[in-house]
Amino acid sequence: MRTSFSLLLAAGLLLTASPGQAQARKKAKAPAAAPAAAPAVAAVPVSDSVALRRIFDEALLRGESYDNLRYLTSNIGGRLSGSPQAQMAVEWGKATMEKAGFDRVYLQEVMVPHWVRGGREKGEIVGNKDKGIKVPVCALGGSVSTGGKLKAGVVEVHSFDELKNLPDDAVKGKFVFFNRPFNDALIEPGAAYGGAVEQRALGAAEAAKRGAVGALVRSMSSARDDNPHTGTMRPATIPGAAISTNGADKLSQLLKANPELQFELEMECITLPDEKSYNVVGEIKGSKFPQEIITVGGHLDSWDLAQGAHDDGTGCVQSIEALRLLRAAGFKPERTIRAVLFMNEENGARGGTEYARLAAQSKETHVAAIESDGGGFTPRGFGLESDAATLAKVARWAPLFKPYNADEITAGHGGTDIEPLKDAVHPKALIGYKCDSQRYFDIHHTAADTFDKVNRRELELGGASMASLIYLLSKYGL
Amino acid sequence: MRTSFSLLLAAGLLLTASPGQAQARKKAKAPAAAPAAAPAVAAVPVSDSVALRRIFDEALLRGESYDNLRYLTSNIGGRLSGSPQAQMAVEWGKATMEKAGFDRVYLQEVMVPHWVRGGREKGEIVGNKDKGIKVPVCALGGSVSTGGKLKAGVVEVHSFDELKNLPDDAVKGKFVFFNRPFNDALIEPGAAYGGAVEQRALGAAEAAKRGAVGALVRSMSSARDDNPHTGTMRPATIPGAAISTNGADKLSQLLKANPELQFELEMECITLPDEKSYNVVGEIKGSKFPQEIITVGGHLDSWDLAQGAHDDGTGCVQSIEALRLLRAAGFKPERTIRAVLFMNEENGARGGTEYARLAAQSKETHVAAIESDGGGFTPRGFGLESDAATLAKVARWAPLFKPYNADEITAGHGGTDIEPLKDAVHPKALIGYKCDSQRYFDIHHTAADTFDKVNRRELELGGASMASLIYLLSKYGL
Repeated sequence: MRTSFSLLLAAGLLLTASPGQAQARKKAKAPAAAPAAAPAVAAVPVSDSVALRRIFDEALLRGESYDNLRYLTSNIGGRLSGSPQAQMAVEWGKATMEKAGFDRVYLQEVMVPHWVRGGREKGEIVGNKDKGIKVPVCALGGSVSTGGKLKAGVVEVHSFDELKNLPDDAVKGKFVFFNRPFNDALIEPGAAYGGAVEQRALGAAEAAKRGAVGALVRSMSSARDDNPHTGTMRPATIPGAAISTNGADKLSQLLKANPELQFELEMECITLPDEKSYNVVGEIKGSKFPQEIITVGGHLDSWDLAQGAHDDGTGCVQSIEALRLLRAAGFKPERTIRAVLFMNEENGARGGTEYARLAAQSKETHVAAIESDGGGFTPRGFGLESDAATLAKVARWAPLFKPYNADEITAGHGGTDIEPLKDAVHPKALIGYKCDSQRYFDIHHTAADTFDKVNRRELELGGASMASLIYLLSKYGL
Repeated sequence: MRTSFSLLLAAGLLLTASPGQAQARKKAKAPAAAPAAAPAVAAVPVSDSVALRRIFDEALLRGESYDNLRYLTSNIGGRLSGSPQAQMAVEWGKATMEKAGFDRVYLQEVMVPHWVRGGREKGEIVGNKDKGIKVPVCALGGSVSTGGKLKAGVVEVHSFDELKNLPDDAVKGKFVFFNRPFNDALIEPGAAYGGAVEQRALGAAEAAKRGAVGALVRSMSSARDDNPHTGTMRPATIPGAAISTNGADKLSQLLKANPELQFELEMECITLPDEKSYNVVGEIKGSKFPQEIITVGGHLDSWDLAQGAHDDGTGCVQSIEALRLLRAAGFKPERTIRAVLFMNEENGARGGTEYARLAAQSKETHVAAIESDGGGFTPRGFGLESDAATLAKVARWAPLFKPYNADEITAGHGGTDIEPLKDAVHPKALIGYKCDSQRYFDIHHTAADTFDKVNRRELELGGASMASLIYLLSKYGL
């Protein structure tokens, strides 16, 4: 690895900090906005490659994302829309951006759903034997409660077509067990998720139409373990629960031996009235084209089972960091840059919808929007929703990202929170930050999505990649 | 991610297994050599891209690396050369290859060093106050013991030049504390390791020349934590210990306040007489050019502090898997393929040296050798030690690896175990398997290098990448 590195980064090395500087990393953090140092370094114009190297140096030697994420995940933790923790996260986001010295920090009010998991979640396979077999389950977000213990037979299906073709009496009064696994042959786990997630989203609603009493859904993961994966479901009259992949395999195996077995489910979840909440917005005003806006964001809400580290604490701290890095590296963006911590991506996307509505109402001009919501792993590049000419323009910057292994610039998906901007203000591109995703769905929406799964360097490299793209978008427009 | 994936893999998708097959993954494993199925699928010639897709399908749907690694790390664990665990690992390797049905499986005897850590390892900063401050330390491999408690003053340096320029009385009778950190600005952690590791390798020997009583070396890592990182050191008359990065920061800070403080070190390590051990070799004979050999390997020994998962259990199971995948996917390699589990990479490289010596003695023809010794993380590609024409030839295959994100084929470093082949039998290329490396040095040579740090899909994708390169090397030669 040494040799190939030296080939790639021969130029960049000249700009890297000395070991002494690296050592001083923790002790002498630069002030967030580095007001004194900035003019001095910015006085001499620098090439784009030098600018990017400066951004990455700042991130790797004095990055603040990791410490910010530690605070958000460890001191606040899971922060489902409408929860007290979500409100704490709003306050944390605002304070963190203010401390970073952005030109303007403000909140955008938005009403959000308020679903509460409640205390008890139990799932048990009840066969002919006296003793049941407990399996790990959790309510899907938006589910109704079981109203005490709900016991019924189980019918296993792998698709909605299979469900459709079942006779009524095979479904009525039973749990429908949706057990389609991820297609492990797909290289990108996101594609496997896309191929299976309709079971979780629509399973209970479809099962209810056929007279089922509940839906049990195999967890959305390639991993074989005991973590149930929650996630949003379309409101239904019957409860919907996720079952861990090991639990699903067990249930399937026992069903083959005894199709008459029963399942007992107990969940106490409830939907309360909508709550007032907020998007958190921080802004650096453009020096030349302040009316042209570039948005970078992640979502501040998370599921309630864990700390919401990779989903999407990392996207939040990287978005804040992207703006901080530009300032700290001595750059004054030509266009206006906004870091947005969107509320309610997980179960409603109300924050993203409201952000777009306000943008349209104010007749804002949006150049591009970037979202980081695929975890905080090693950067790969960016995926664009744009016309071909815009994609070609951005892809021409790929060589600048090559030294950082973040040069995969392709057509792709922007992100749930920035999607509503498309029809509202027609940005030239919606851009999804792409990082390595092999580990993501092992922990996604589970109790295992915790701070210790995040690697400091991977996280900071991601923030630097996003800041670098913003630097270029701000300088050249689209 | 969905969109970009569909663009990349439009063709490949046609060949992927159905979800039903994925579901049956654990239950219906193909026999290792798939003798019945192989002729049927191999009857129709396939394009190289189809061949690679078939290899990756086999790895992702029915891969055996992960279960093999679980056994090696959990049932045997750390396996330093000369230890009983190293011998157990030899037997495991042989049995695993035999079970996989290779044409020939054999051992190569080699005498290896036998260094033993012993029971007690203690480090304590002793200042003016009554109570000392314990810091995490571990002996460097090959160190002599302290012969009871060794207490002395400490002088901190960051380079050998700095040590050289110190007056004798500043060094004599003291511990030399080598505290050069990783240069965090480097994108590849391997480069940062390369820039700091001389302290560990030569620190004690250099300090001894100046009359020091011991060497304390900052752990080789960017992470700030309490894990001391062991690793080999050149034999010296004085003991050498690694100190965790947090411990090193603490010691440095206290030294600034009190240059007269003392350090107390206690280590009971000892070097015993050399032990007999073995490389484990498994072979599939080439169908057209059996005399032309392609080697793929990792090292079977590991440090003693942990399970040796990423260093280098992953390389071992991937090497075995590479051969198994070719067979299971229905291919008969044209050239002879050898999986080699090298003994003693960590503290002597005797296995690699012996493998090369025997190859030269038998006048073998070696086309290429591949080593996986950089962890079992997501594939990036391959680094070649070769002439430019050979590199250009292999780099032309890059598009075949693009759908798997393993298409970075560049000049690079082969590997410690295959290095001796260069002068012995002049293979056209020594090839290092390259994977994402941001997490590697957080755990390298520490108690944290455990099975749970390995992701199944990342590991299997790596084995499939290696098998794919072997498929092409075997078909086309070099």
